[in-house]
Amino acid sequence: MTDRPQPIIILVRPQLGENIGKTARAMLNFGLSNLRIVAPRDGWPNPNAGPSAAGADDVLDGAELFDTVEEAVADCVMVYATTVRDRDMPKPVATPAEAVGAINLLEKAEGRVGILFGPERSGLTNDDVALADTVLTVPVNPKFSSLNLAQAVILFAYEWYQDKDVTPQYQSAYLEGKAPKELLVGLMEQLEKELEQHGYFRSAGRRDTQVRMLRNLLQNMELSAQDVATFRGIIKSLSTGRPL
Amino acid sequence: MTDRPQPIIILVRPQLGENIGKTARAMLNFGLSNLRIVAPRDGWPNPNAGPSAAGADDVLDGAELFDTVEEAVADCVMVYATTVRDRDMPKPVATPAEAVGAINLLEKAEGRVGILFGPERSGLTNDDVALADTVLTVPVNPKFSSLNLAQAVILFAYEWYQDKDVTPQYQSAYLEGKAPKELLVGLMEQLEKELEQHGYFRSAGRRDTQVRMLRNLLQNMELSAQDVATFRGIIKSLSTGRPL
Repeated sequence: MTDRPQPIIILVRPQLGENIGKTARAMLNFGLSNLRIVAPRDGWPNPNAGPSAAGADDVLDGAELFDTVEEAVADCVMVYATTVRDRDMPKPVATPAEAVGAINLLEKAEGRVGILFGPERSGLTNDDVALADTVLTVPVNPKFSSLNLAQAVILFAYEWYQDKDVTPQYQSAYLEGKAPKELLVGLMEQLEKELEQHGYFRSAGRRDTQVRMLRNLLQNMELSAQDVATFRGIIKSLSTGRPL
Repeated sequence: MTDRPQPIIILVRPQLGENIGKTARAMLNFGLSNLRIVAPRDGWPNPNAGPSAAGADDVLDGAELFDTVEEAVADCVMVYATTVRDRDMPKPVATPAEAVGAINLLEKAEGRVGILFGPERSGLTNDDVALADTVLTVPVNPKFSSLNLAQAVILFAYEWYQDKDVTPQYQSAYLEGKAPKELLVGLMEQLEKELEQHGYFRSAGRRDTQVRMLRNLLQNMELSAQDVATFRGIIKSLSTGRPL
C-alpha cells in the first residue's frame, strides 16, 4: 500500500447503487479511497451500494456528494473525462497508463486530480467533457466497446496502483501553475453572463453549442490562477466600462 | 481487433450465472472469445448469464462445458492459475503483463494456453493450482485483495489486448516441446494408481497432500511429450515387471 497522493474518482449521475458499491470495491482493491458522487439517480446513501462493496464500506462512508460536476471538480487542477466514444473535441487523449505519469507529477506538486466517469447507460455528456483537461480512453475492442462502470474504474485504478514510469505528457512547471477548476468555472460563468447581456447569443438554439465551444476554448488555454484573474479583469473592464 | 491466437478463459466451478455473463462481456471488451466452464454450481446454460453479458452472447453460446479441470486443460500446453492468496507452492509467479509475453510466444508456436479462474467465494483449490504451470497474480492492495471474478478476468484481458512487449520468461524452444496437459494428467493418474496398489500411501489422511505434492513435482519438471512417454514406460516397467 502506497502513501502517495490519490486521484479522486468522480461518478457523474450514476444510475445503480450496486455499481457505486462495485466501484468502491474496485477502488479499494487498488488502494484508492477518494470517491465523489454527482447527482446519483436514486439518491444517496443508497441501500444497494453496501452489499456490492464487499467490505469497502469506508470508501462509501467517505464519499462526498455534489449536485453538479462543476462543484465536484472545483478544487481540482486537472480533470480527466473517461469516454469510449470519440467526442470530436479539441482535447488531448490519454490511456490510463499514460495518465498515471502525469497524475504522479501533478500530485507531487500538491494539485488535486479528478477522474470523471459517466452514467452507465449514456456516459458523460459533451458538457461534462468540456470541463476536463484530457479525455481518458481505455483501448478496447472497437466492435464491443461498452465497458461496465466498475470495470472502467478498476482498469484506471489498476494502472494507478502499478505506478509504471511512463513519460509524462506535461512539464511539472506547467502543472504547478495550473488554476483550480473553480477559478476556471468562475471565469466561464462570468464570460457567459456578460456575453448573454451583450446579446452575443443571438440564436437560442445554438446557445448551448456556443457555450460548450467557449468552455473548451478556455479550458484548453491551460490558464494559471494569475491568468484567470487577468482575464476576469479584462472581461469586467470590457463589459462595464464605457467605450471611449 | 487482432487475429492473434487467444488464450482460453476457464471458469472453475463458478457460482453465479451473472458473473459468467459479466466475464463474457469483459472478455469481449478486449477481444477474447474462448470460454470454458468447469462444473458451474447452477448448471449450464444459466438464464442469469445472458442479461449480464450485455451483448456478448456469442461468447456465452460458444462456451464449452467440462466436468473437471483436468478435462478443461487437456489440450493446453500451458496453464495459468489466478490466485490472490500466496499458496506456498513451488511454481513460478507472473503478473498479467508478464504472462502476456509468454502467451504470445507460446501461441506463435500453436500451443494452447488456459487461464484458470476460481469460484467467487473461495478461489481455486490447491488441487486446481497443482495442474498449472504458473501462478498468475494481480498486484493488489494487500489490505483489500478480494477481486470480483469478472474484475479479475477483465484485468487479464486488458493486459492481453494491450499486447505490450514484455521480456518473456520462457524460451520458445522450451515452449514448443511442452507436453499437452492431457498427457501429463495421464502420467499423474498412472503414477498415482500404481503407487496406490503398491501401498505407497500409508496414511489415508495424508494421501491428498502427497498426491498434490507429486502432481506439483511432475508439473514443474516441464516435460515434453517424449519425456512423458519415457516416464510412463518407466512406471509401467517398475510396477509390473518382476524384480530380478
